[in-house]
Amino acid sequence: MGIFRLGHVDIRVPDLELATAYYTEVLGLLEVAREPDRVYLKCWDEHDHHSVVLRYAPRYGLDHAMYKVDAADDLDVYERRLTDYGCTVRRMSPGEEPGMGEGIRFESPTGHQLELVHRVDKVGNLLPKTNPPPAPLSLPGIHPPRIDHVFLTCEDVDGATDFFMDILDFRLTEQLMASDGHRLGSWLERSHSPHDLALITGPQGGLHHFAFWLDDWNAVRAAADILAYHGVRIDMGPTRHGITRGYTIYFFDPVGNRNEVFTGGYWHDPDAEPITWTEDQMGKAIFYYEGAINEEFLAVHS
Amino acid sequence: MGIFRLGHVDIRVPDLELATAYYTEVLGLLEVAREPDRVYLKCWDEHDHHSVVLRYAPRYGLDHAMYKVDAADDLDVYERRLTDYGCTVRRMSPGEEPGMGEGIRFESPTGHQLELVHRVDKVGNLLPKTNPPPAPLSLPGIHPPRIDHVFLTCEDVDGATDFFMDILDFRLTEQLMASDGHRLGSWLERSHSPHDLALITGPQGGLHHFAFWLDDWNAVRAAADILAYHGVRIDMGPTRHGITRGYTIYFFDPVGNRNEVFTGGYWHDPDAEPITWTEDQMGKAIFYYEGAINEEFLAVHS
Amino acid sequence: MGIFRLGHVDIRVPDLELATAYYTEVLGLLEVAREPDRVYLKCWDEHDHHSVVLRYAPRYGLDHAMYKVDAADDLDVYERRLTDYGCTVRRMSPGEEPGMGEGIRFESPTGHQLELVHRVDKVGNLLPKTNPPPAPLSLPGIHPPRIDHVFLTCEDVDGATDFFMDILDFRLTEQLMASDGHRLGSWLERSHSPHDLALITGPQGGLHHFAFWLDDWNAVRAAADILAYHGVRIDMGPTRHGITRGYTIYFFDPVGNRNEVFTGGYWHDPDAEPITWTEDQMGKAIFYYEGAINEEFLAVHS
Amino acid sequence: MGIFRLGHVDIRVPDLELATAYYTEVLGLLEVAREPDRVYLKCWDEHDHHSVVLRYAPRYGLDHAMYKVDAADDLDVYERRLTDYGCTVRRMSPGEEPGMGEGIRFESPTGHQLELVHRVDKVGNLLPKTNPPPAPLSLPGIHPPRIDHVFLTCEDVDGATDFFMDILDFRLTEQLMASDGHRLGSWLERSHSPHDLALITGPQGGLHHFAFWLDDWNAVRAAADILAYHGVRIDMGPTRHGITRGYTIYFFDPVGNRNEVFTGGYWHDPDAEPITWTEDQMGKAIFYYEGAINEEFLAVHS
Repeated sequence: MGIFRLGHVDIRVPDLELATAYYTEVLGLLEVAREPDRVYLKCWDEHDHHSVVLRYAPRYGLDHAMYKVDAADDLDVYERRLTDYGCTVRRMSPGEEPGMGEGIRFESPTGHQLELVHRVDKVGNLLPKTNPPPAPLSLPGIHPPRIDHVFLTCEDVDGATDFFMDILDFRLTEQLMASDGHRLGSWLERSHSPHDLALITGPQGGLHHFAFWLDDWNAVRAAADILAYHGVRIDMGPTRHGITRGYTIYFFDPVGNRNEVFTGGYWHDPDAEPITWTEDQMGKAIFYYEGAINEEFLAVHS
Repeated sequence: MGIFRLGHVDIRVPDLELATAYYTEVLGLLEVAREPDRVYLKCWDEHDHHSVVLRYAPRYGLDHAMYKVDAADDLDVYERRLTDYGCTVRRMSPGEEPGMGEGIRFESPTGHQLELVHRVDKVGNLLPKTNPPPAPLSLPGIHPPRIDHVFLTCEDVDGATDFFMDILDFRLTEQLMASDGHRLGSWLERSHSPHDLALITGPQGGLHHFAFWLDDWNAVRAAADILAYHGVRIDMGPTRHGITRGYTIYFFDPVGNRNEVFTGGYWHDPDAEPITWTEDQMGKAIFYYEGAINEEFLAVHS
Repeated sequence: MGIFRLGHVDIRVPDLELATAYYTEVLGLLEVAREPDRVYLKCWDEHDHHSVVLRYAPRYGLDHAMYKVDAADDLDVYERRLTDYGCTVRRMSPGEEPGMGEGIRFESPTGHQLELVHRVDKVGNLLPKTNPPPAPLSLPGIHPPRIDHVFLTCEDVDGATDFFMDILDFRLTEQLMASDGHRLGSWLERSHSPHDLALITGPQGGLHHFAFWLDDWNAVRAAADILAYHGVRIDMGPTRHGITRGYTIYFFDPVGNRNEVFTGGYWHDPDAEPITWTEDQMGKAIFYYEGAINEEFLAVHS
Repeated sequence: MGIFRLGHVDIRVPDLELATAYYTEVLGLLEVAREPDRVYLKCWDEHDHHSVVLRYAPRYGLDHAMYKVDAADDLDVYERRLTDYGCTVRRMSPGEEPGMGEGIRFESPTGHQLELVHRVDKVGNLLPKTNPPPAPLSLPGIHPPRIDHVFLTCEDVDGATDFFMDILDFRLTEQLMASDGHRLGSWLERSHSPHDLALITGPQGGLHHFAFWLDDWNAVRAAADILAYHGVRIDMGPTRHGITRGYTIYFFDPVGNRNEVFTGGYWHDPDAEPITWTEDQMGKAIFYYEGAINEEFLAVHS
């Protein structure tokens, strides 16, 4: 099967206490473990050890993202392909990162540090495995059930799209084409969702945002209520994407990283043809209701 | 009981065919009657003859708004009070406007033509009076069940608020106060909803928008889908008001009148104290999620 | 204006601690005051002193229901009409019941103790009156914003309907007619909602249920989740009524009183014609989705 | 990857016209092709040729179900495994069934005719592949975006669960265990959803129901409105499953086949542990809100 989901994002934060307070109280993630300069968090319905790492660093941004693979053999396959492609691949031992099993680490041609990991320690969601209710009651903040995707910037979206499709077996769901025929953005999946990873033209190694899954449009409203209650700056939304069809809010954590809550979208068959958006429809493509992109969306990234 | 609901808005449109197509196909109102220069429309769940009149005129804007009163005596009471206040009041005969019963017409101190009408011909909603289903299926467009309120501009909101409260028995639900102590806006009700009428500082006789009721937040989403599908320009939303707590989209009809779809809010007891908003919180007051007002909201009115 | 809302229900409970735990933790009402044998509760968005009284008594059921009137004069008018009708009316002094102003008490021809009260002490909802957020965060349980209606049983629905319409100025919104032409049920309003009071054929003085308002269909789902989580017995729903069009769940408090959570419905103009349901469509009238009434609905009342 | 989704169900109907009218007008499927004794239907957001076949037959029930596989090689692998297991496997030529590519057909140990197909003709959803809106407007009936799962009865759920896991690589998400330790039901997935296939104790070769995906709880309400409007008999719901956490309505087509509309649930990681339900909690497991199973649910199958 290869890659089957985004495992975690490791985020740089210049104020670890402030960021932890925000991610636990406003977003409602659960703190799983803590080291002097890192805090490990998970969404309530995730079983794996963590899906977000907050890492002390002088400037905000993405340290690395990790995708999970199905079989130990997958690591060998991808290590070989990546090496052949020209990436320097480093083997990671189980436990080198808390909760993580065996893995490989490399820098993608987009300038991002990426990891593939085979096994992750299970800490369980908040429910029993026998006769569970559908959800706990009274979780704090937005409490998304799980992380959804990461959205990265890079200079050469065409080349990067080929890389993720050819080397890592991602499938292209949607693409935004400049009038001169090159791709401005690509949406890629391994989980039959509209995207587990997306790329947009911008600086090498940049993070546009990372996103959490919500149950439905009503949960998007509830998230907006919670964000506004806490005075969190909303970048855009609640609104709908043309690309992915998803419902969304973009907003910023207190140190400058853009977050998204996302739901909706569609089931993407592995044999489906990708959807193409043309640059003149870029407004609708990104924000379907507004039909236009706010300047901040284009300008801000970390 | 006196006034118990907004009856109709009579809107000026420089292109009657274009406006009719929009109000019937995108908003999904029903055409009830037509004259050479006027089209009479209603929402599906309204029983009265019409709630919107499109009237040919060279420039967009509000011709007049009508509120319904409970008893024939109410007309006498309000005629006397209005005359004492200094308004010129004109009696309207039944049938002078299609479907309308006896009424009075006057210019309010805000510079708007307003009517009070005692009886309106019943044309029925689209359901039988015996064993009705809860709603028809397959209505076109947004198809709001009913009109909700009208939002007017005037130069002296304090004076106008007193007028509507003292002379017409409106109750104040919320007020937006400038730092110097005068009112920038007032929200007034006769139906226990957050507002049947609202006033905001601006030109005398101006229309900021008129609004249709929707069932819930999900209907707001569906409305946004329909607006975007038809390429209608959305001014703001889907979002939430701080004032009224309501969920909203603002958008423009093809000739320049601002429409709103609105839902949520609260039940307002007649003995409830009004809520006060201070000018420094005006952003949250108007658009709770954004915490800021877009320039268009302030600038555009008809 | 006369009566404008249901003020409170006073409920008999044989286990005051158990009932209080249920109404505060599962329903999520707020405890306002307590006496040795009574607990006073309110919904979060109500401003008045209380809307539910739990009263120790050996058997469950309704002690009395209270409706609020707009003006002190209303009490005189209704006292006179009630006395003329043949009811024994007792004046109630302010403070005779905690938080209540001046009032009158009488037994209606349905066998119920009813009160009309002019003023109720304001304790406020949980929000400031200046620049309030739309709602508090993290309220426990179902936390309905307000009480909605009470549904009573009596032997002579036709006579009772006349009484509430003629003497107390209720307006008929819907009626369920037996094939022989007498009414099996009546739905009556004073607040432009589908019902502030309803009557169904059954024992004199019986309580079928009392109901709390919820925001929308999604809140009905959340309520069902909370009820099931706590193992509360659900009688019917989530489903929809034909009568009122409302969305509903019926369920029982731990001592046997039936509760409802309700939302939806429609705006009822005071000049609207009532809707009639025929006995052969009684299933759809009560439970529109099922098209049939469960036996418990008919059999159980308190 | 192997099997990645339920492709189609082929349903026996004794009245082809009546069934076609129901599936196109009430469920809102699209007719793709027609033969004298078969009608081919699809959901609006599916790209493949069809997902439902209505086949004239004297008695209702399931003729066969088809799952799609990712690669031509998958057919070889499964053919070999099935043959080794003892199944008689028949190769199907492309076009043997309208729109279908190469495939294999066999009888599972549960007594059902199943097919695996490699390629299916693409007919497209109703949207363009360039700059599409998120959905068409004004689709008739319930119009689910896609088929979701099939629920089968068999005598030996334990043996059948092993078969689907060992031979066809399904993953177990949940299981309902009798007090004596054998499985009463199994929920199995290939698409990271709670189930693409489920099994419950009952007659060999029986169909309990097949299910369509809906967007959210609000779409479940809208479906209930449409079903009730058309007088379709609802078996259960709107309600929630304990198993799968999904929101659901069960109802019957006019010839006796049980349909479901389903949404919600969770993302199932391929390395997740299954959830176990015990027989004493069977009520909550199947209908979480009611906590009990209606007799019809157990008794009726086709």
